[in-house]
Amino acid sequence: MNIPVVTRVLEKNDAAAAENRDRFDRLGVVCVNLLGGAGCGKTALLESLLPRLKERFRLAVLEGDITTTLDAERIASLGIPAVQLTTQGGCHLTAAHVQKALASIDIENVDLLLIENVGNPICPANFALGEHFRIAVLSVSEGDDKPSKYPLLFRGTRLVVLSKLDLMPHVDFDVGRFQRDVHRVNPNVDLLETSARSGEGMDQLASWISRTVEQMSIRQCESACRS
Amino acid sequence: MNIPVVTRVLEKNDAAAAENRDRFDRLGVVCVNLLGGAGCGKTALLESLLPRLKERFRLAVLEGDITTTLDAERIASLGIPAVQLTTQGGCHLTAAHVQKALASIDIENVDLLLIENVGNPICPANFALGEHFRIAVLSVSEGDDKPSKYPLLFRGTRLVVLSKLDLMPHVDFDVGRFQRDVHRVNPNVDLLETSARSGEGMDQLASWISRTVEQMSIRQCESACRS
Repeated sequence: MNIPVVTRVLEKNDAAAAENRDRFDRLGVVCVNLLGGAGCGKTALLESLLPRLKERFRLAVLEGDITTTLDAERIASLGIPAVQLTTQGGCHLTAAHVQKALASIDIENVDLLLIENVGNPICPANFALGEHFRIAVLSVSEGDDKPSKYPLLFRGTRLVVLSKLDLMPHVDFDVGRFQRDVHRVNPNVDLLETSARSGEGMDQLASWISRTVEQMSIRQCESACRS
Repeated sequence: MNIPVVTRVLEKNDAAAAENRDRFDRLGVVCVNLLGGAGCGKTALLESLLPRLKERFRLAVLEGDITTTLDAERIASLGIPAVQLTTQGGCHLTAAHVQKALASIDIENVDLLLIENVGNPICPANFALGEHFRIAVLSVSEGDDKPSKYPLLFRGTRLVVLSKLDLMPHVDFDVGRFQRDVHRVNPNVDLLETSARSGEGMDQLASWISRTVEQMSIRQCESACRS
């Protein structure tokens, strides 16, 4: 029987995620977990987004991958502190990975911690990392049927980013079907359309994140005052 | 400790995969495991490929997904026997899934069984299904850095299909880098470039599969005669 073991793994992860979340709240750090399939454009999105956010927030990025430090190098080249987490075959980040990585970051001087999860539309959605909210990314080249096929990715998220909008004229992607399917899976989710390549929608995405992070920061502050 | 449990899961799967493989060999069925990330175009590739193969082979298709029967419906509409396997959250097919699905197929009258795995570039590569060979699919829109980032997907395969070639003018994809990286991970792999949308490379892919399946069939025949 494997199911009890899986349950224990998830329970253990949830406990570590709660510890991370407590620590973030104590330090006034807002943490975002960025999820999506391989090649949906998460790193390119961050490359376009971080320069728009870095005047407003002290940033740090954790890059999750199975192997290689390619993505952390791309982020670090923007002058943003970045740590590469390699799972060595593991298909998702865990809260324990994040706990370890925090030792390499000056987390007390961070306002916004962005975690790019392993490129995989399935398993990462099962593992909380201690994040305050998730952003799910889907590229138009992946197809409009994905909300039905990967419901968990779209269910646990506060924002869905439809990326690679510049490819829209070259693919068969029914935006109406996509929007209906996303809202069927997650009725209250926000949806933004972006292209990191052309810059379309990137200011709106930066504004959405800034607004949401500031609301969270105020709540953290109020909560700290009460306790 | 979770590792012993994972090991047992893999061992159990390997045993079931060996049973499937024996059964395929006894019946003269060649089985192909098609792997790749979500939205890399595996189903579209099959839709373009199956009409090219169906004069030559008696075909059947197993469609792996977490949920929905969308893909099996697309294949069945071509007049090819198709079974949808839904993993209900599981991120990969297992040999046991395939064993169960074979009950729904007239497998004695099949020459070529194509299995489309769950859209995920990571976990499916760890689980043998009893296939004779694998085909890994990557779309140009996913990026040229994927062989380094997902080495297992590219290592265990006999053929890599670079799909969505029609998008090449609209993405930053360095074919030279991709080819070098694929061959660094898997020096003997074949590489074909295709577009299911334009039809480019599809005849070459159909020929490659036909040739490889026929070689396997001859070997199965010879082995049956010896035993």
